[in-house]
Amino acid sequence: MISVKDFTREKVIYYIQKAENVEKLPKCSKTLINLFYEPSTRTSCSFHTAMLKLGGNIIEITDNSSAKKGESLEDTIKTVSNYGDIIVLRHPEKGAAERASKVAHVPVINAGDGNGEHPTQALLDIYTIYEEATKDLLKENITVTFIGDIKNSRTIHSLIHLLNLFDVTYIFISPPGLEIDTTGLNVLNATLEEALKITDVVYITRIQKERTSETYEPICLSKELLSSAYPDLIIMHPLPRQEELPPEIDDDPRAVYFKQVAYGVRMRMAILDELIRTMQ
Amino acid sequence: MISVKDFTREKVIYYIQKAENVEKLPKCSKTLINLFYEPSTRTSCSFHTAMLKLGGNIIEITDNSSAKKGESLEDTIKTVSNYGDIIVLRHPEKGAAERASKVAHVPVINAGDGNGEHPTQALLDIYTIYEEATKDLLKENITVTFIGDIKNSRTIHSLIHLLNLFDVTYIFISPPGLEIDTTGLNVLNATLEEALKITDVVYITRIQKERTSETYEPICLSKELLSSAYPDLIIMHPLPRQEELPPEIDDDPRAVYFKQVAYGVRMRMAILDELIRTMQ
Amino acid sequence: MISVKDFTREKVIYYIQKAENVEKLPKCSKTLINLFYEPSTRTSCSFHTAMLKLGGNIIEITDNSSAKKGESLEDTIKTVSNYGDIIVLRHPEKGAAERASKVAHVPVINAGDGNGEHPTQALLDIYTIYEEATKDLLKENITVTFIGDIKNSRTIHSLIHLLNLFDVTYIFISPPGLEIDTTGLNVLNATLEEALKITDVVYITRIQKERTSETYEPICLSKELLSSAYPDLIIMHPLPRQEELPPEIDDDPRAVYFKQVAYGVRMRMAILDELIRTMQ
Repeated sequence: MISVKDFTREKVIYYIQKAENVEKLPKCSKTLINLFYEPSTRTSCSFHTAMLKLGGNIIEITDNSSAKKGESLEDTIKTVSNYGDIIVLRHPEKGAAERASKVAHVPVINAGDGNGEHPTQALLDIYTIYEEATKDLLKENITVTFIGDIKNSRTIHSLIHLLNLFDVTYIFISPPGLEIDTTGLNVLNATLEEALKITDVVYITRIQKERTSETYEPICLSKELLSSAYPDLIIMHPLPRQEELPPEIDDDPRAVYFKQVAYGVRMRMAILDELIRTMQ
Repeated sequence: MISVKDFTREKVIYYIQKAENVEKLPKCSKTLINLFYEPSTRTSCSFHTAMLKLGGNIIEITDNSSAKKGESLEDTIKTVSNYGDIIVLRHPEKGAAERASKVAHVPVINAGDGNGEHPTQALLDIYTIYEEATKDLLKENITVTFIGDIKNSRTIHSLIHLLNLFDVTYIFISPPGLEIDTTGLNVLNATLEEALKITDVVYITRIQKERTSETYEPICLSKELLSSAYPDLIIMHPLPRQEELPPEIDDDPRAVYFKQVAYGVRMRMAILDELIRTMQ
Repeated sequence: MISVKDFTREKVIYYIQKAENVEKLPKCSKTLINLFYEPSTRTSCSFHTAMLKLGGNIIEITDNSSAKKGESLEDTIKTVSNYGDIIVLRHPEKGAAERASKVAHVPVINAGDGNGEHPTQALLDIYTIYEEATKDLLKENITVTFIGDIKNSRTIHSLIHLLNLFDVTYIFISPPGLEIDTTGLNVLNATLEEALKITDVVYITRIQKERTSETYEPICLSKELLSSAYPDLIIMHPLPRQEELPPEIDDDPRAVYFKQVAYGVRMRMAILDELIRTMQ
């Protein structure tokens, strides 16, 4: 579970269907290693909870003292392979998860590698779209509007890879300087107001201040903007949020970003169980 | 479990009796979230141990990376509500636990909110008084002497609220500037020497240097002072201690501050079990 | 489990045989306290994993907030004795584990006390030698070559104590200034090249930069040096490593330092189980 590039349309549907049925998964007695070189309370807790619900154990390594003594990622991975059955790795460098998977004796899950990928977030996002926006990913064309820091969001990069397996129209609305290359994508140009009237999914993110030295004016949603928007759209956000998504929207039934958190636990249970089965 | 103000005399007795019988509590399979915005090894470990003894699991969040990215308490609470069944919250702001309980989908336990309250500490303290100083809280008048930083101790504030449900005489001995408003309390004026001769309970605390910029001269106990004190008094301290409570006293049978720690685990088991039952 | 000085030859063999059979150990329901005043991801994870494999629970205390409020080691130990059944203590001061064991109500395992000892590392090291270099510790004379920062390595100090129970010839190769007193030891003088031709065990360590202000030139192994070395020697390292042990050696079948990690988990399971049995 290193890159969304390994995914097919069938594999995505398989994981979604598995996530819908996590209550039926058998209990395991495996140990998960949460190896986080960058803090991420949300992602580490989500995996932690998922493993507990599967009956397994967790060892959290959030402050690797060996790394501070000069240990390479490879040495750490070879070492912690002895402490558990699956490694969840968050690392600031792109490609770290792939490097780790080459030396690990146990499966490695990429939980974010620098500005690279975040495949499990992408899976939980497409699962949320499936549950809340459309139950027919395979047949329907859906329109997804990305708002905010599109350039630095590995979450969005990974999600687009998965959405490309289906019939999707994209709208991108970002502060100047935070765009991505949209070559090959089915893009529709629209203002924020226009987009909100026709999109099925609004996916908004915060400006990732930790990844840039410049300041950008965020593009913000508001109750007013949403009052004239498409009544069946859904609003997603990977959280944590800042001013781009004011809490006044939380009561809107189209706001599904806290449901996303719950879908995340289910999807990670599905992913962990899948890896556990391949071990047997 | 937000404030001691919600407690009645009957409720206090109920929890004490429950804490006396924790060995008989059924096993649970719930998950506790220890969400600590301020470090508190003692309190978090006490809840951790209590939950393990009940058979449950724990997720510790001591360094919330989302908060550092600007996430509000409310958003964090709504998120972690998806990760466990009970939230134990320690937060530097008064009122934080109440704010949290308004948005949480699961029960919230206040484990200290700034200079506000610390209700579970108050319950374990009154439980210790019940076990070590009197078995007849309902009938007896007891005298409790508080020594030290009374102004900044939320532990003392919360305990006084509970003691007020019973027939209690108070003596307060603190460095000038660290007093509290004693309006409405049944107070006896006495010197330290006089107090030690007549009090049933000595409750001494350290100067909370982290909550003040001034320096205060602590009022200290000593073996000598205790040699002429009431033979049946008990000496309590919420720990950690500093020079106000020298280790030379530890062997005195009246010193019960390490027993307090054990009573704390029992009381937290009782509290957690009570909340788990209300879920079913 | 405070000092290797308590060990006899029979006790070492007993633990080795126990470690060889950890699969047969019964499940326990005890709680381990990992109380680390110095970070050590490797050692704490190793104990954590060992306890999980025995079926028990773990409370990790890596950042003791009470110590920061001025709490003594003794008070912390008396407190955490209420939270678990065994304490694993890592502390920067020599003698800390012994001080702890005097006030603890539960067994204490010394997981490193300053430049003092690290007995469980020594046991896992001799277990590795037994498994990988000789199955006949009792009869054979073996030659062990220590390379690197011998002065500051409590791991080496502890291991030599255990090796002295058997028939061992030592070779020491260290940068000037990092030697130890070898009085009473059966020492052979040799250059690195000579040593590699005749030694059964190479035990190499990093320069412990955190324990010295001076800089030392490390003595490094290399593929070339090993090409003419004794074909049946084994290469050990307590890890993490630095330039003294280049990764180009990892594929050499004589390199057993990652196997050492796995032996470590087994030995700690044996040690924990032994302590659990003495409680009953």
